[in-house]
Amino acid sequence: MGKHSRAVDPAQLTDLLRLEPGHGVDLLSTSTGATPGISGGKSAARELQADLAPRLADLQERLYAVGRSGGRQRVLVVLQGMDTSGKGGVSRHVLGQVDPQGVTIAGFGAPTEEERAHDFLWRIEAKLPRPGQIGVFDRSHYEDIVAVRVHELLPPAVWEARYDRINEWEAGLVADGVLLVKVFLHISRETSKKRLLARLDDPTKFWKYNPGDVDDRAKWPAFQQAYQDVLERCGTDAAPWYLVPADHKWYRDFAVTSLLVELLEAQHLEWPGADFDVEAEKARLLAAE
Amino acid sequence: MGKHSRAVDPAQLTDLLRLEPGHGVDLLSTSTGATPGISGGKSAARELQADLAPRLADLQERLYAVGRSGGRQRVLVVLQGMDTSGKGGVSRHVLGQVDPQGVTIAGFGAPTEEERAHDFLWRIEAKLPRPGQIGVFDRSHYEDIVAVRVHELLPPAVWEARYDRINEWEAGLVADGVLLVKVFLHISRETSKKRLLARLDDPTKFWKYNPGDVDDRAKWPAFQQAYQDVLERCGTDAAPWYLVPADHKWYRDFAVTSLLVELLEAQHLEWPGADFDVEAEKARLLAAE
Repeated sequence: MGKHSRAVDPAQLTDLLRLEPGHGVDLLSTSTGATPGISGGKSAARELQADLAPRLADLQERLYAVGRSGGRQRVLVVLQGMDTSGKGGVSRHVLGQVDPQGVTIAGFGAPTEEERAHDFLWRIEAKLPRPGQIGVFDRSHYEDIVAVRVHELLPPAVWEARYDRINEWEAGLVADGVLLVKVFLHISRETSKKRLLARLDDPTKFWKYNPGDVDDRAKWPAFQQAYQDVLERCGTDAAPWYLVPADHKWYRDFAVTSLLVELLEAQHLEWPGADFDVEAEKARLLAAE
Repeated sequence: MGKHSRAVDPAQLTDLLRLEPGHGVDLLSTSTGATPGISGGKSAARELQADLAPRLADLQERLYAVGRSGGRQRVLVVLQGMDTSGKGGVSRHVLGQVDPQGVTIAGFGAPTEEERAHDFLWRIEAKLPRPGQIGVFDRSHYEDIVAVRVHELLPPAVWEARYDRINEWEAGLVADGVLLVKVFLHISRETSKKRLLARLDDPTKFWKYNPGDVDDRAKWPAFQQAYQDVLERCGTDAAPWYLVPADHKWYRDFAVTSLLVELLEAQHLEWPGADFDVEAEKARLLAAE
């Protein structure tokens, strides 16, 4: 597939995938197999992603340099989605395109006893990326609404109060220099079943399979409702949600790469200047042994 | 350069680069530009590394799977060497070949006031990789001998006692399932000067330059002596040092890749078996919506 198949400039992916804050979201009627911005299928997406990879690596290095030079900027990619929606795949195939020195990945499972004894944001705060880093959350504080609600772990009044708490907390992060990139990976119930079955057909993938995943699938509609409410109520101008149709892995990886490139380019990250006399340092170095 | 240029099987790099515990080391007479195991130059090394990359990625994933399934195994790559010796380059180009979910990189600069108030291993312990992870230390507890000694930060009796402390502590790590890969990146004083000058010639690299690096270069012989003593006194059968000639970046990256592949292959990491009834799960999944 040649370059002419590119129907849309990748710099438009943020516009195509952003859920407009304040608008309703209807997950049931939102396609999981669509490929907004790509008309040429897998080969076109792979080709575009290959073009984007060095741009993303350059942007990540600039961010890292800024962080090393006293800047506060950092990125937090929040990945949410049903089991098998590809949160790990994004970590591997999108973040794997940049220098691992600039990436920190944190996963959030069921909270431990110690974590439950604290406010729900305590363990989240502890994993926030340092300046200059791209942090990735594989699941996040949103589980403290979604999973808690679906599994009825706490009274509704508790998780109901968390929408506003999260919005306020995220606004504080953004004010402190965090570029928040919240991504919902949207897959169909059929795709989920296929991917779980594939794990059962391959002994090198048994370790990824958890019988509890099937129990969660039984509650698919309740999870979709819970995610929908989170997408509606926690999408803000400062920290909007991006909905990525994720039935096609090649689209998912292209789309998240493209989102990151566009959002980082909009930060206008400049290489830090020298805080020393360059010519004097050259002379000193040349005079040394 | 074709496959016939491979003079040595990469599986022999550990033998070629390991400093034999109990033997003396003479850094001054050890080549920084040699390329043990490679006779075909850069193109041969790149070709071999391209063959090794998927093997390393597979081994990393097995390690990760073992860790997720209750195993204690993990890897700790300790990178030491003078400024510009390529510690960051190894993190980027060697560890960048595997899934970033399985890699945690920690750098150790001058200790903070809080860190100095604790035992020198306190901050090191805090950054040890979890089971299933490959941890990378960009500088490490060895700075608590080398930098402390060269800069005369503490009385000799203090750092003198640390050789044995480190050996005992590392033996404990190995006994607890840590594969320790200690790598000394050996560069020449001339290479160091060239690389520092290159940073001063490129405004996108100013942020990597620190005037203090030139001051450290002035103490080159003292650093070499301090490293040599560490290589001699802290190389053990359980945790030997590998000396990688690092004037050629392409050799350095190939060599560390090859070390990791060989050492991980020797661990015979097996995919974890299912702790559930595979056929029953398939049936349950197929019966579900």
